[in-house]
Amino acid sequence: MVPFAYRAGVLTLLDQRRLPHEESVLECASALETAEAIRSLAVRGAPLIGVAAAYGMCAEARRVLPRVPEDLDAALLAAADRLEAARPTAVNLAWAVARMRGVALATAGGDASTRVLLLEAEADLIAAEDRAACAEIGRLGAAWLRARFSVDVPTVLTHCNAGALATAGIGTALGIVRALAASGKVAILADETRPFLQGARLTAWELAKDGLPVTLLPDVAAASLIARGRVHAVVVGADRIAANGDVANKVGTYGLALAAHAHGVPFVVAAPTTTLDPATPDGAAIPIEERDGAEVVDLPLPGGGTVSLAPAGVSALYPAFDVTPSALVDAIVTERGISERPHAAGLARLLASR
Amino acid sequence: MVPFAYRAGVLTLLDQRRLPHEESVLECASALETAEAIRSLAVRGAPLIGVAAAYGMCAEARRVLPRVPEDLDAALLAAADRLEAARPTAVNLAWAVARMRGVALATAGGDASTRVLLLEAEADLIAAEDRAACAEIGRLGAAWLRARFSVDVPTVLTHCNAGALATAGIGTALGIVRALAASGKVAILADETRPFLQGARLTAWELAKDGLPVTLLPDVAAASLIARGRVHAVVVGADRIAANGDVANKVGTYGLALAAHAHGVPFVVAAPTTTLDPATPDGAAIPIEERDGAEVVDLPLPGGGTVSLAPAGVSALYPAFDVTPSALVDAIVTERGISERPHAAGLARLLASR
Repeated sequence: MVPFAYRAGVLTLLDQRRLPHEESVLECASALETAEAIRSLAVRGAPLIGVAAAYGMCAEARRVLPRVPEDLDAALLAAADRLEAARPTAVNLAWAVARMRGVALATAGGDASTRVLLLEAEADLIAAEDRAACAEIGRLGAAWLRARFSVDVPTVLTHCNAGALATAGIGTALGIVRALAASGKVAILADETRPFLQGARLTAWELAKDGLPVTLLPDVAAASLIARGRVHAVVVGADRIAANGDVANKVGTYGLALAAHAHGVPFVVAAPTTTLDPATPDGAAIPIEERDGAEVVDLPLPGGGTVSLAPAGVSALYPAFDVTPSALVDAIVTERGISERPHAAGLARLLASR
Repeated sequence: MVPFAYRAGVLTLLDQRRLPHEESVLECASALETAEAIRSLAVRGAPLIGVAAAYGMCAEARRVLPRVPEDLDAALLAAADRLEAARPTAVNLAWAVARMRGVALATAGGDASTRVLLLEAEADLIAAEDRAACAEIGRLGAAWLRARFSVDVPTVLTHCNAGALATAGIGTALGIVRALAASGKVAILADETRPFLQGARLTAWELAKDGLPVTLLPDVAAASLIARGRVHAVVVGADRIAANGDVANKVGTYGLALAAHAHGVPFVVAAPTTTLDPATPDGAAIPIEERDGAEVVDLPLPGGGTVSLAPAGVSALYPAFDVTPSALVDAIVTERGISERPHAAGLARLLASR
């Protein structure tokens, strides 16, 4: 299962809004279409929207090239701005766009066709690096957790989807879960993750497809299961990690961290170093995306249309992310190593390690 | 809006499974039908299922009387057992049934028609007492909170539905919210309360009907709003309160209490003294209902049928309640007064006060 493919100016995305009921694809042949796919959550997951944006710039380049090659620079810079603005919280998006913008600027004045090939090579590299990072995160995180488990079949709880549908590889949090499953028995609890239901629709789908034992949980039930000793680790992804180790991730993560901390259950954040944002001092400085409350009230139906979960006229709030303070995070697992508290020092060490 | 009515052997219930899309009623003319209405959540809310069970015994008495009046005793005792077993967590159910059983036993050997009238009088009294308790809880709780608010328009967050749809009166938690709204401005946040969506379907419905300003929240968003200082009190109901003040309430309550405690936001439990269970020493001894995971995965549609939120074959856990430790509860508001920590002493004092 690969959530994206790029070929000759067209980025093909597995439309994640339609899973698990339908495996349909969405074709993006421009930066505009790619930005809209990112904004509408057809493609999501911090590392993956970075990859998608990189290919979105390639698609834009291929679109402009045969028409007005002299407009390529202006088109690429506009594409970068548009893609970067699609979603505010995940820093991987801005990071990937900055990297592509760098290639555009470095090659300015060169042959247009060659420039497009260089852009595509860069996007491929971003994807390949993310794939490798997922594998290493899985390996490191599983070893860290195995050393701490005191039961034969540990239960790992995860939130949202930080898996193969959120990355170019096996996932970050689910990379660890997959590595645990490859090296021993493990039980997996997936928060359903209202309102977009990434856990119920995506995490359950990709784990079940791999034959991994996953059980769904209403988000509200996680704290009580943790309190009852039925969870041995909480493993989540991240959308942005500030310099001090504060973690922005899918809304609901903070509540999990509070519960895990209260009961001494390891709380692990898995993310590639592209999710680290040393320029942002702490969580308070991370922009938190507020989405339309209608996405809370109106549940999309598989056949199209929506069903309202509330009385007509009632509005809702939908902060899409929350911030988990560094002090509640036991380990931040990256492809370059693991940060333990205090994370300000741990993350600085990881960032300096290459 | 009255969620129940009883007349001549028929208990008519507003079918809460169909709200807010449809205001339809369900008629229960026996203990069996009433128990099924309770089990299936057509009627819910700790105080209200006690009231419903009391009338269920009346309905059973009226059903048996014209047929085989000599079977009345056996029928009443069987009805009591059946109703009491319908749901395990809310102690109000067992309490109301015990009270009705007491009337049945005290009048044994008497004229059957008179006995039925006495049972109906007792059920009416249970309902009237609950109505009065709600009003007093509202008055006391609002005064307690007003004294602690430091903003002009406080925001109160509630979970599940502890309102007019959960009681015979204005509600417990929503009784306090209504009393606050009657004496000043207040903003109300309602957790949607997956999986049965009591907040989205019921709390939003009854507050909107009363013209009160309610905004929905995905359950996962509550902790982050509390962390950001956007919630000034959390007010919830209860299904059973142990002797030490541990509170069983709708699953998700414990997570809210953790977040409120972490940020110094008052966490208030509102319940009539019929929810107090001095015979249960602490939360660990409270039976927690486990419902069918299919109720998590399959969302009922307004027109009938369900839509699956997850891939076929994926199962779910559904503990319907959780336990909030006494230490996280700032106030337990009953119609007899307010218990503050330590609740073991506070609750004992309230129970001894009449």
